[in-house]
Amino acid sequence: MQHKEAILSSYKRITPYIHNTPVLTSEGLNAIAGANLYFKCENFQKMGAFKMRGALNAVLQLSDVQKSRGVVTHSSGNFAQAVSLAAKQIGISAHIVMPENAPQVKKDAVLAYGGKITLCASTIEAREVATENIIKEIGATFIHPSNDLDVIYGNATACYELIEEHDYLDFIVAPVGGGGLLAGTALSASLFGRNCKAFGGEPIEVNDAYRSLKSGKIESNNTTNTIADGLRTQLGDINFPIIREFVEEIVCVEEVEILEAMKLIYQRLKIVVEPSSAVALAAVLKNKKHFSNKSIGIIISGGNVDLKSLPF
Amino acid sequence: MQHKEAILSSYKRITPYIHNTPVLTSEGLNAIAGANLYFKCENFQKMGAFKMRGALNAVLQLSDVQKSRGVVTHSSGNFAQAVSLAAKQIGISAHIVMPENAPQVKKDAVLAYGGKITLCASTIEAREVATENIIKEIGATFIHPSNDLDVIYGNATACYELIEEHDYLDFIVAPVGGGGLLAGTALSASLFGRNCKAFGGEPIEVNDAYRSLKSGKIESNNTTNTIADGLRTQLGDINFPIIREFVEEIVCVEEVEILEAMKLIYQRLKIVVEPSSAVALAAVLKNKKHFSNKSIGIIISGGNVDLKSLPF
Repeated sequence: MQHKEAILSSYKRITPYIHNTPVLTSEGLNAIAGANLYFKCENFQKMGAFKMRGALNAVLQLSDVQKSRGVVTHSSGNFAQAVSLAAKQIGISAHIVMPENAPQVKKDAVLAYGGKITLCASTIEAREVATENIIKEIGATFIHPSNDLDVIYGNATACYELIEEHDYLDFIVAPVGGGGLLAGTALSASLFGRNCKAFGGEPIEVNDAYRSLKSGKIESNNTTNTIADGLRTQLGDINFPIIREFVEEIVCVEEVEILEAMKLIYQRLKIVVEPSSAVALAAVLKNKKHFSNKSIGIIISGGNVDLKSLPF
Repeated sequence: MQHKEAILSSYKRITPYIHNTPVLTSEGLNAIAGANLYFKCENFQKMGAFKMRGALNAVLQLSDVQKSRGVVTHSSGNFAQAVSLAAKQIGISAHIVMPENAPQVKKDAVLAYGGKITLCASTIEAREVATENIIKEIGATFIHPSNDLDVIYGNATACYELIEEHDYLDFIVAPVGGGGLLAGTALSASLFGRNCKAFGGEPIEVNDAYRSLKSGKIESNNTTNTIADGLRTQLGDINFPIIREFVEEIVCVEEVEILEAMKLIYQRLKIVVEPSSAVALAAVLKNKKHFSNKSIGIIISGGNVDLKSLPF
């Protein structure tokens, strides 16, 4: 009940700042999948990804004192941009710790949204030291990209909107990286759906979440060898218990299956998505029997992709 | 008045068979353009382009005898697919005359929609002979891809839907190739808008429509040297007088401007479009002063692009 109220109040809190993103369907894709697919298009969200929801939900709950000191996060991806834009929208400062070797295009995106970048060496230790220094020196509030309940509740609102519009869904599938999207999705599927089950899709190359569910303890990845760059992150201790309780199953997919699903999304849905977004569709296509003739929501996580690096 | 009633009855006729496609906006693109842009996304239309509207409007008005004999068109692009699918939807046969050297991917698309392909040499004469033969032998009804009033009225329904949803638009801009989309768009802008003016966007490399407006007679292209492959076609004698009467101006754009606009659409709107679709945005960006702070509808004509050939 606590989760349910938290998601509803998060939704109310962030609604003035976000898009209620469209849900797209394709007869062609339905025929290929043998099921009815409903794509919740968070690539059309502000700054191009669902991360905007969690970031906003976190910054909007800061006290006035906290707001005056700003926020800090470490990310070289969508969450860096999301925190920068969310902070800008409410007029506070955002400090982003990024590795020196992050692509210039990602640094530029953060700067364009008004974020202040602190560069560090490309190690977890350096990242944590740089973040700690900002917290100590400026008193900025740290927001974790995925392992944070407010972020999870914010992320949950995408699935909540999807179910509000299509309340008959049998399954909802989301990609899993750090676990913040899947945890939020699973909460909303369980709390607002009518017997709606949540599935995760995960690249087999970085399947820490899949292995964590099997072993019952948080596992780590030894490689980051996947095109789904948003999913190379580590499952966290706040997400894991939620995923364990509310997610039916995590389906692991091969790189070639991610590429094939990504191509189908571009060709059939005519939308631009990140490789990570294709992982959920790949999981559905890998398990056609299980999903046969069902109504399935798929969370398209984002669309911030370097057009020069499209794998077609 | 005749045009107005024809468009309204066309809309009623085809509505059960088509999508009322979404209208997308982007704060980022508005900032770049210095205007408020409303993108009517016909890339999300059935078979991926506005051509579905005109094709349906033509086949749905055939008599029973005509239906029993099927339809024929010559096209290697979207109209071939549109006629194939429209014919399939009402259970009649579609004959498509295509040049032997048409890409296999386009032949496959026609076949997938149930069209019957007749191959011919890659000349206008061979195409016309092959089409004439089918008309004589089978009695099939010919449908021209653009220079046909029913096709124009069908195309006009995209702009009609856009104005129904956003009745305050100052301008509507569409790409011009054969002229069927621009003629229909201009009719709807003029007849249903509130002082809404229609503009065309045309690649400078194939600017027969622009030159025809200047000279007052139908001009031809000497080259087909544009990435906007859907716009390499010839202006027709049914479209021309409509365009002359109802279009405010045609703006010619360079290839590099088309590419830049296409990139912006992928990056900012997160949708997959054909190069031809980017020509209208390119025309707006080329004339920022003229469109400054105005509300502008832009018809995104289609999204059938070979992912392997994306120019990024």
